[in-house]
Amino acid sequence: MNAIDKLIEKIKQKNNPTVVGLDPRLDKIPEFIKKDSFAKFGTTEKGAAEAIIQFNKKILDSVAEYIPAIKPQIAFYEIFGEEGIRAFRETCNYAKEKDLLVIGDIKRGDIDSTAEAYSTAYLGKRKIGYKEESIFDIDFVTVNPYLGTDSIRPFVEDCHKYDKGIFILVKTSNKSSGDIQDILAFGGKFLYEHVAEMVTKWGKDIVGQNGYSAVGAVVGATYPEQISALRTILKQAYILVPGYGAQGGRAADVVKAFKNDGLGAIINASRSITFAYQSDKWKTMYSEDRFDIAARAEVIRMRDELNKELARKMAGRV
Amino acid sequence: MNAIDKLIEKIKQKNNPTVVGLDPRLDKIPEFIKKDSFAKFGTTEKGAAEAIIQFNKKILDSVAEYIPAIKPQIAFYEIFGEEGIRAFRETCNYAKEKDLLVIGDIKRGDIDSTAEAYSTAYLGKRKIGYKEESIFDIDFVTVNPYLGTDSIRPFVEDCHKYDKGIFILVKTSNKSSGDIQDILAFGGKFLYEHVAEMVTKWGKDIVGQNGYSAVGAVVGATYPEQISALRTILKQAYILVPGYGAQGGRAADVVKAFKNDGLGAIINASRSITFAYQSDKWKTMYSEDRFDIAARAEVIRMRDELNKELARKMAGRV
Repeated sequence: MNAIDKLIEKIKQKNNPTVVGLDPRLDKIPEFIKKDSFAKFGTTEKGAAEAIIQFNKKILDSVAEYIPAIKPQIAFYEIFGEEGIRAFRETCNYAKEKDLLVIGDIKRGDIDSTAEAYSTAYLGKRKIGYKEESIFDIDFVTVNPYLGTDSIRPFVEDCHKYDKGIFILVKTSNKSSGDIQDILAFGGKFLYEHVAEMVTKWGKDIVGQNGYSAVGAVVGATYPEQISALRTILKQAYILVPGYGAQGGRAADVVKAFKNDGLGAIINASRSITFAYQSDKWKTMYSEDRFDIAARAEVIRMRDELNKELARKMAGRV
Repeated sequence: MNAIDKLIEKIKQKNNPTVVGLDPRLDKIPEFIKKDSFAKFGTTEKGAAEAIIQFNKKILDSVAEYIPAIKPQIAFYEIFGEEGIRAFRETCNYAKEKDLLVIGDIKRGDIDSTAEAYSTAYLGKRKIGYKEESIFDIDFVTVNPYLGTDSIRPFVEDCHKYDKGIFILVKTSNKSSGDIQDILAFGGKFLYEHVAEMVTKWGKDIVGQNGYSAVGAVVGATYPEQISALRTILKQAYILVPGYGAQGGRAADVVKAFKNDGLGAIINASRSITFAYQSDKWKTMYSEDRFDIAARAEVIRMRDELNKELARKMAGRV
């Protein structure tokens, strides 16, 4: 089944277009988890990796039944070297055991032969001797478009071959995203609009039964005006929207990424969910040892807020 | 010492502006190395990683005295999961034992808080408990500019703090690089020229004693006209030039990246050196078991070719 149809199925089943970003920061992981892990493995990379795995598993045990997918950001795993990559892999595996989809937020982008290696690593299968196996159990990855068509092609080929999907950076959520992405091109279009047109082109031959392509786009919640413009250009692309919550994006902003069928977007929140126990919203109700319950409370609150705003949109009220 | 001054010192010492790209492809590593490693560790990720480490070490034993730096492309290590990252780390460490500089070709690019994690992972020091340590022993990394200033800042800060350097993608060597990089902006400049101007700005406060900045640029050997234009715009940036050799860039093209002081560029070759034993140029002279000697022969040939062309340029003959 086309990866985007799998995602849509899960979103409908959970009635929730939220993806939880698992971006573990060691200094925010509860002390009791770290203490336990450091006692077993020392204050080593292995100790850190184990603390991350335990933290992620407890979050997943608590929220899995309410969400369609997770989005681990690999930078926060790479920071612990090979042990971090092991934690990334185990986190992906555990999410799959819980029947969730996994969006690997890796933002790779390289020349054709190297892009092929990245795609093999995260979407495809690597060969050692006669053995062909996948390394990570990941359904989607994020990709940087700066290197153009031949840097995207290996990923799209693996999407066809292995029923996977990608989300290509179009307009990112950070403050300086306009430095390059908002450059006005000759002819009157912004660069991000050109990129959006390419995303449409790159994804046109891999459209699923719901009318959406396995080649999606990333558009930040922090730029509501651009979301509206891009929703039109992106036609069949699913939009992965980061920047909700901790980065300032609001529900009324992110619903602009959806189409009138109530589909077309998945909204990511990371810190606001995983570290909800430290937030002004939840810290009086949940102590550190109940961080997982706090995460679930925030997942449910966010789901209801999004669905309410989405219902208003679909009723033509916004 | 400013990282770019360290690089210049090494280039002068070896009289060679070549960096060797260590991009191991398992199917091109000599059979006797793989056989040995698979016998010890099975056709597993560990077996593949050990074969890569042995291959890289033999290459380094053979070429280290002739080159200033290596550039491992991390995609070819990520393909073997955590064992691959171990091979990447051990390769970097072995290069440092041989007194070489290491350019980690990672092409990361992400929003500010994530860029900080990437920079910590590859240039800075990660903290576990009270222990602050670096993970990889790397001097430079490559960075993708698509996300703008705040995605670059954490790297530049670590360049200041730890005497490191970065090379930012400006015009890449692949065939489709123009899809986005050559978009003509309102005002008449190409996108890659805008990016080059930003590179100049991002690097202006971290200039070493040779007049070059620790913030460099990547410009592909396959676009000689753009190299000349960019050499002017990039002012104080060192240019890392990929695409020589296997990708088709010639010595006469790449010397355009140098300034008249004979400095200002470092030329990468990967496959043409590491897999020289399979090339038309060397395969009749060197059998598979002498792959390391073939690599050295190609390093010396390339050094001499570059230096000859560089001498002509400095004499005003090109």
